[in-house]
Amino acid sequence: MNRLHNFSAGPGALPLSVLEEARDEMLSFGTAGASVMEISHRSPEFTAVLEAAKQHLRDLLGLTDEWHVLFLQGGASLQFYQTALNFLGDGQTADYVNTGAWASKAIKEAKRCGNVNVAASSEEDAFSYIPPVDTWKLSDNPAYVHFTSNNTIYGTEFRTDPKVNAPLVCDASSDFLSRPIDLSGYGLIYAGAQKNIGPAGATVVLVRDSFLQTARKGVPTMLDYSVHAAKLFNTPPVFAIYMVEKVLRWLKDLGGLGSMQRRNETKASMLYSQIDSSGFYRGTVQPESRSLMNVTFRLPSEELDARFISEAKSQGLVALKGYRTVGGIRASIYNACEPDSVRALADFMAEFERVNG
Amino acid sequence: MNRLHNFSAGPGALPLSVLEEARDEMLSFGTAGASVMEISHRSPEFTAVLEAAKQHLRDLLGLTDEWHVLFLQGGASLQFYQTALNFLGDGQTADYVNTGAWASKAIKEAKRCGNVNVAASSEEDAFSYIPPVDTWKLSDNPAYVHFTSNNTIYGTEFRTDPKVNAPLVCDASSDFLSRPIDLSGYGLIYAGAQKNIGPAGATVVLVRDSFLQTARKGVPTMLDYSVHAAKLFNTPPVFAIYMVEKVLRWLKDLGGLGSMQRRNETKASMLYSQIDSSGFYRGTVQPESRSLMNVTFRLPSEELDARFISEAKSQGLVALKGYRTVGGIRASIYNACEPDSVRALADFMAEFERVNG
Repeated sequence: MNRLHNFSAGPGALPLSVLEEARDEMLSFGTAGASVMEISHRSPEFTAVLEAAKQHLRDLLGLTDEWHVLFLQGGASLQFYQTALNFLGDGQTADYVNTGAWASKAIKEAKRCGNVNVAASSEEDAFSYIPPVDTWKLSDNPAYVHFTSNNTIYGTEFRTDPKVNAPLVCDASSDFLSRPIDLSGYGLIYAGAQKNIGPAGATVVLVRDSFLQTARKGVPTMLDYSVHAAKLFNTPPVFAIYMVEKVLRWLKDLGGLGSMQRRNETKASMLYSQIDSSGFYRGTVQPESRSLMNVTFRLPSEELDARFISEAKSQGLVALKGYRTVGGIRASIYNACEPDSVRALADFMAEFERVNG
Repeated sequence: MNRLHNFSAGPGALPLSVLEEARDEMLSFGTAGASVMEISHRSPEFTAVLEAAKQHLRDLLGLTDEWHVLFLQGGASLQFYQTALNFLGDGQTADYVNTGAWASKAIKEAKRCGNVNVAASSEEDAFSYIPPVDTWKLSDNPAYVHFTSNNTIYGTEFRTDPKVNAPLVCDASSDFLSRPIDLSGYGLIYAGAQKNIGPAGATVVLVRDSFLQTARKGVPTMLDYSVHAAKLFNTPPVFAIYMVEKVLRWLKDLGGLGSMQRRNETKASMLYSQIDSSGFYRGTVQPESRSLMNVTFRLPSEELDARFISEAKSQGLVALKGYRTVGGIRASIYNACEPDSVRALADFMAEFERVNG
């Protein structure tokens, strides 16, 4: 086994103990006499996994019975359309906050369904900040207000839950369960699993029942949240859910979302303090909008960016290259990225600056 | 390890060697320094997996460059809508053959998009047969003709490829790659992976370029086949595709689709000959429509059905209960179900009849 310090932006690192458990159960899961991948999604064995995963989410987030917990497929990319298809009727308006590439894609798909008001945008400054809520130009009676809680490409993040007079719909794919959420303003939260809570292939959707009641009727069956809220409609992504269940259990064992938030703040501060104490590294986003999940920065030249990435890799620190359209360095330090890995990166940054600064 | 004889209707059995390989690579895949689940879907390591999976499909089926190979999400249930959304415009007509519950669901979703002509149906006889092609009442100029090549619930299967004067669209979820296909009449083939080619969570779509050119423009991005044919648009179900690649490699190593067909015919004949040589077991479908994948039969009473299932289980033969709306016995013997397992079931059937017949 040769595991490196993995800063992948997604699919991201998974807890080692989760992988070990999956490895040990690969040929025979519990009393099933088969892998979890080889049994019916309606079998008692998988039903127990699915129900446990849902219960972990309820426990971690404090979800009441008014929330439905769904495991769907297609990632945030399908949710961009599905949320609008269900909640944005012809003639209605939804407000969107444009904080980057993924938010822009959500806006594009929503426009197929109804009117979109871009209530705020940081595009004019290369998405380097989160527009403060008090600057948002909300419409009079929006069906919902959509935002992207963390922006993996640019390294910005909503550090608190926005308060508005309409149901919040949130793409939380890249910081889901990295901190507690004040659910009071939310109607729906969706998250592709592959950053913080599991492998690619499962999409968690939390939807409040009172919001679900406002959904359009008669949308195509697989895109209808009500169908999935009512029952397990079709074969779900069994193995991905099985892994999510283990990650959620690991998260509970670590102390839950409050503990995870402190752990994530500690990890991020190792890197941001290295940046701030240096004239060499330059953060690319406004400090108050900095993400705890994706730490983005640049060196004095593109040549040094490249040398940094290359030398880091030779020391076992991998997947540090910034997004292809942005460049620079990006260290993704999602929940499962261990503090030891972040410490190793901070040490490498100090040493690289000493030699090249 | 305690692996049973697994006759699950889906998700179904996987080759043991595939599971062993996945187990051994769980903590560290190749030179990635991480699990395949923890690396970018655009990394060289996963790109190699994805391209290998596509190439295996090209090799196994003899696909020319005129075919696009896509790995999507959402299973056949989403394809029911997606195929119609892309290929059945308002005012157009598509022909559907109704051979059971899944075909009926495909018809339901297609009606959202355009006119549906049910060209043939075996509903009047409890879906116990495949309507012969020469009885189909096709419309004058259908956009396509849709059929379900194998019907898991009822145990019927198209044993040859239909010939019609319009592009065939096929839900091949439950017998995909169980035999060679004559592709000449097909425009599109889709298959959820979880029966014959891998775990749940990946959906293979093969689409002929000339058929794709007839698709509607401007459908929602994630539902647009052209988007996925042009590039890897979003994060795919990485682990499911990784498993599919291994299963396809196993299939090639076994000799390809001709060998697999002979193996499947041999397996099925062990059970059907047991049924046919008996006054005790009663097959539920017309012999010429019998499936090689799902062997359905009944005993003289529901009480004996139940005892059969229970005693089989005690001997390590599991997942033999018929579909919940149909009852009786169903032995699903997909590609990865080993001949030894089928032999064990045939032997059990003989012994059970001797004692209870």
